[in-house]
Amino acid sequence: MKLLTVGTVAFDAIETPFGKTDKILGGAATYIGLAASKLGAQVNIVSVIGGDFPQEYIEVFQKNKIGIEGIKEIKEGKTFFWAGKYHIDMNNRDSLATELNVLENFDPVIPESQKDSEILMLGNLHPAVQLSVLNQMKKKPELTILDTMDFWMNSTWDLLMQVISKVDVITINDAEARQLSGEFSLVKAAQKIQEMGPEVVVIKKGEHGALLFNKKQVFFAPALPLEDVFDPTGAGDTFAGGFAGYLTQTGDLSFEGLKKAIIVGSALASFTVEKFGTEKLQELTSQEYKSRLEEFKNLTEYNYII
Amino acid sequence: MKLLTVGTVAFDAIETPFGKTDKILGGAATYIGLAASKLGAQVNIVSVIGGDFPQEYIEVFQKNKIGIEGIKEIKEGKTFFWAGKYHIDMNNRDSLATELNVLENFDPVIPESQKDSEILMLGNLHPAVQLSVLNQMKKKPELTILDTMDFWMNSTWDLLMQVISKVDVITINDAEARQLSGEFSLVKAAQKIQEMGPEVVVIKKGEHGALLFNKKQVFFAPALPLEDVFDPTGAGDTFAGGFAGYLTQTGDLSFEGLKKAIIVGSALASFTVEKFGTEKLQELTSQEYKSRLEEFKNLTEYNYII
Repeated sequence: MKLLTVGTVAFDAIETPFGKTDKILGGAATYIGLAASKLGAQVNIVSVIGGDFPQEYIEVFQKNKIGIEGIKEIKEGKTFFWAGKYHIDMNNRDSLATELNVLENFDPVIPESQKDSEILMLGNLHPAVQLSVLNQMKKKPELTILDTMDFWMNSTWDLLMQVISKVDVITINDAEARQLSGEFSLVKAAQKIQEMGPEVVVIKKGEHGALLFNKKQVFFAPALPLEDVFDPTGAGDTFAGGFAGYLTQTGDLSFEGLKKAIIVGSALASFTVEKFGTEKLQELTSQEYKSRLEEFKNLTEYNYII
Repeated sequence: MKLLTVGTVAFDAIETPFGKTDKILGGAATYIGLAASKLGAQVNIVSVIGGDFPQEYIEVFQKNKIGIEGIKEIKEGKTFFWAGKYHIDMNNRDSLATELNVLENFDPVIPESQKDSEILMLGNLHPAVQLSVLNQMKKKPELTILDTMDFWMNSTWDLLMQVISKVDVITINDAEARQLSGEFSLVKAAQKIQEMGPEVVVIKKGEHGALLFNKKQVFFAPALPLEDVFDPTGAGDTFAGGFAGYLTQTGDLSFEGLKKAIIVGSALASFTVEKFGTEKLQELTSQEYKSRLEEFKNLTEYNYII
């Protein structure tokens, strides 16, 4: 199988209680691509960058065998830029700057050879862009995964509902699940969201783990308790990329397969937060990854209680 | 083994978004005793009540074979009373009334035959009362478990430190673990608290589950995602009672044993929140309990990822 993702490729400037960065490589599609490629998945990105996007960042994609044929460069434009500041609890952040730049008129074009991708991951973007990507696919992918956020619920509800009705899986955080469904209970929220289209709902709770619902079952993936969360930027996208990448590699779309995929997503996300930006994800070794999976297993495994 | 617990036996008046109650049976020792007895553990309570404590509540203890020899009745006094109101997120509550009454001069007396109890559960109370109970034991129990709260950190720090230095396990919520340790990271908080005395730290995160730390390992017990949390009162005490009761029954104080004990505590607490007060815990059948344990197993179990 191969994975296609549409999302931002961006510059981020990040400030946390542990330090701050200048403009560094960021964007949802970047994290999704890196996470999936770390699992050996064939992943292609559809996105847009400006003429200011440096060659060394292009090489990050190339080195990780991430397909960039679908990343359009607008030479006279500037790359999307986000600056943000986290506080001590790391669950809250202030956006200090959001410069859409080339993203403002982003018209995604899927390369012909990628229109038959079996797994499609729609990164958090304007629902019209997500819809355009969905419509360009030659046939319905075996699995379409949607990430979105409260901003689109507030500004483009009807379009968002169109996208939601067409996807198999939605990943969303707990506050957004509550807003989208109007239900406080996450169990009820998941049921309401399933009625909007997706059979599978993944609710991300940050440091509190993630819940996976299909119409009959529920599964919980913990977050690894860490000594320090250094920089949470990209954790959600890494999670989604690990999830989609694992499914691309195994092709197992059963609930058992989805369970393992959210553990893999959680494991990869636990690395992302250990350093600024994509740094830890880029340098990650397969030995570290395997050992982290073992830690996740030990975190929740116990013998039967009689 | 037998379990001894000291804690409040009280009247609660509770208001939640789902309804409200008049004065009903409550108190930490009540929940601890009921939870432990549901597991078949021999449990005795040391506490104090007023002359207004009704016979029908006494019968609840008797019916569940909970030892009440150590519950002193002060005929001319009134039973401890707490009234509180929960908001929609159920993690926050306002205390509307706290009438200490007979608790104000509570001088705990352990019946002679209970001074050799192997497991001692110190419910949330003034540290001086907890210390008095510790000092009355004929020999050091095989396991002493402490529950406490921020109120005692703010008002009786030195006494609390004395108690903490003498116990094997502390159960505490996440905000309190941060306050007690001065560390934001729960991993670091657990380490700091271990340096104060207890080898084992249990951090309760309410709807986000619970973490169990010894000096080398960490384990995570999820909370069951529920359609509705009806009334969270007593959930933490039920958790502690299930934990202590399970250890009393198995006698397995290894980390494996502790892991199973916090799952059992979480499972019992998931019942308590389904109805007001002790109602659900009282009517709980062993079939419901077994089936809930199965749900917990399914919630986090997955096959190895390769």
